[in-house]
Amino acid sequence: MPGPLKGYRVLSFGRVLAGPYAAMLLCDMGAEVIKVEEPTKGDPARNNGPFINGISSYFFSVNRGKKSITLNLRHEEGKEIARRLIRSVDVLIENFRPGVMDRLGLGYHAVREINPRLVFASISGFGQTGPYAHRPAYDMVAQGMGGTVSITGEPGRPPVRVGYSIGDMGAALFASNAILAALLERERSGQGQWIDVAMVDSQVALCENALARYFANGQVPRPLGSRHPLNTPFQVFPARDGYIVLIASQEADWERFCRLVNRPDLLEDHRFRTREGRTQNHAELEPILVEILRSRTAAQWLHDMEAAGIICSPVNDIQQVVEDQQIRSRGMIAEVQHPKLGSVKVAGTPFKLSRTSCSIEKGAPDLGQHTEDILKGLLGATQEEIKRLREKGVV
Amino acid sequence: MPGPLKGYRVLSFGRVLAGPYAAMLLCDMGAEVIKVEEPTKGDPARNNGPFINGISSYFFSVNRGKKSITLNLRHEEGKEIARRLIRSVDVLIENFRPGVMDRLGLGYHAVREINPRLVFASISGFGQTGPYAHRPAYDMVAQGMGGTVSITGEPGRPPVRVGYSIGDMGAALFASNAILAALLERERSGQGQWIDVAMVDSQVALCENALARYFANGQVPRPLGSRHPLNTPFQVFPARDGYIVLIASQEADWERFCRLVNRPDLLEDHRFRTREGRTQNHAELEPILVEILRSRTAAQWLHDMEAAGIICSPVNDIQQVVEDQQIRSRGMIAEVQHPKLGSVKVAGTPFKLSRTSCSIEKGAPDLGQHTEDILKGLLGATQEEIKRLREKGVV
Repeated sequence: MPGPLKGYRVLSFGRVLAGPYAAMLLCDMGAEVIKVEEPTKGDPARNNGPFINGISSYFFSVNRGKKSITLNLRHEEGKEIARRLIRSVDVLIENFRPGVMDRLGLGYHAVREINPRLVFASISGFGQTGPYAHRPAYDMVAQGMGGTVSITGEPGRPPVRVGYSIGDMGAALFASNAILAALLERERSGQGQWIDVAMVDSQVALCENALARYFANGQVPRPLGSRHPLNTPFQVFPARDGYIVLIASQEADWERFCRLVNRPDLLEDHRFRTREGRTQNHAELEPILVEILRSRTAAQWLHDMEAAGIICSPVNDIQQVVEDQQIRSRGMIAEVQHPKLGSVKVAGTPFKLSRTSCSIEKGAPDLGQHTEDILKGLLGATQEEIKRLREKGVV
Repeated sequence: MPGPLKGYRVLSFGRVLAGPYAAMLLCDMGAEVIKVEEPTKGDPARNNGPFINGISSYFFSVNRGKKSITLNLRHEEGKEIARRLIRSVDVLIENFRPGVMDRLGLGYHAVREINPRLVFASISGFGQTGPYAHRPAYDMVAQGMGGTVSITGEPGRPPVRVGYSIGDMGAALFASNAILAALLERERSGQGQWIDVAMVDSQVALCENALARYFANGQVPRPLGSRHPLNTPFQVFPARDGYIVLIASQEADWERFCRLVNRPDLLEDHRFRTREGRTQNHAELEPILVEILRSRTAAQWLHDMEAAGIICSPVNDIQQVVEDQQIRSRGMIAEVQHPKLGSVKVAGTPFKLSRTSCSIEKGAPDLGQHTEDILKGLLGATQEEIKRLREKGVV
């Protein structure tokens, strides 16, 4: 079945991750996404390994289902083709540094003249405004500047990053929300608008609770390992042969846990009687729990805790994620088809809609795979014209 | 100016974080959000400290701008009021465990009968389907099951969590995207639908690149500290007095960096000549870079690197985030008004739209603050009826 965005067309100038991930979200939901790439070179992410028979797994993952057209935006005819494409789309996504689209003559104020209904989304490191607007930024800059690194990792140890590129993907998720909201608003006003989403802003937004705590008590939040800042126990513990997540911070759960491990004395201990007490005195509680939990295997604990109604889970590595029966049953390991590679696995989509379901079927495009189709089908170009454009290096 | 979702009404049965954060995103963009809370108790997040004059900073942060109505959903009249509210809204959000809304008589299949245009979003730990559907889940379960914990932290050290609750907020961001897409689709079909977003699924989706690498080469991704899996240098380094982020993985940037630190020999070193080589040989490169970077202060490095066009940034703690001139200039530290607390700071919104801008102005509601307004204004109840409902404990 087609996704909810069937009939919407997106032109993506996105490169590497933030822009492409936003476009992918819309694509997964059924939009037609036309990805504009530089002739010969293409999206720099095409060079990111590891490779499957020469094709970038990095690129493949975030560009599944899209169409690719090559276009030389420095060439006057390339710009003209871009403008013609812009006339025929609902959404434009770009994640160049601020000013680049303007210098190409394709900035928002220029293109709104030719398509006032266009929703134009710019994703950048710092945003289109402010003193650092023109600085370049990558994922780690957003994670570092936005506060994320300062609250992730072990206490007193070197900073770590979030293991996935949340600096890019966080901004992409906020941007796609804003795009869809602007499309809804357009239904009433008939007008598009310019969306400006910053990677750093998006990290600050995700740090909301750390900020709230700081505003409330003036204490600067620090990394806590796998612990939760307010709930205890609510973290990863080592079992005999591996790690498990244990959540027993609510009073009823804490009681169930103490009874399961046959330690009613902990329920009587004044230090651990409340969630706040357990959090304040975690330095004393943690070694006690570690000792208890080390005595048996992860599988034994998970079995018994589940039976006792205690909230727990394994800590899956990526192989275990791929093999997990729940994750598989949810379609979160999708297989797409590629003419050269055959069937390729990618992460599925978490968008599950009852009437307009989203299905991940197509692989990522080869560079310029749809150039002819788009020039002919959308812009009415002839074979002759396309040949001329190719010879001039425009496409 | 009103946000893009002005005119849309959302009924939120969300509790704690995932549901409330999704509703907050829509609220920030201008939707009217009516939060349904249990009489007397309210959203359990109201008990999460630290507190500002007795008001939960945790609750305040994610519920700014919403309205609160108390409603006893176990009472037949409470259910009837819920149904009448459901008739008058565009979106319903809930994050109970699967089956709870059905048992309340408010499941999707029941309420679509009274409002076929309703977009009904269920956020749950594991989703509405599959073998673990009925298991409870909190943020750490999603981070643990979904693979996030397995790729975050230092190599060979205990697992850590992402310092903010991305298990909840990730699902919320996917859910709000799906809600908006379903509202767009409704413009054509006239029909609502049921959205089923799982916290675990959302983490798997965010782990997409780790999955892509695993599918390409069969190697199980592991935590890398602050390093990037593909780009080097692209991480946090210690300067003399603190940490900085240095991104010099692209060839031109690597060259600029080696020249700045007066180490042209590194450019000649065959181990470090390419991005892939630097990543493969990071164990040898890292100590060299650490030694170089430890020689000067973070501020000195950032100044000189910026002047040399090298991508870098500070590692801001939460206090530095709040004081950062760029972050402030972007309105990411918002102040809202509360009748008892006066002006309260919260994280701002990263949704910057040119024509229908989103402004964060109102604080979070007290429990049941808008019960009368909503019963009167939306459902036409009289003062008499409201008094009776209060006496019976329905509201």
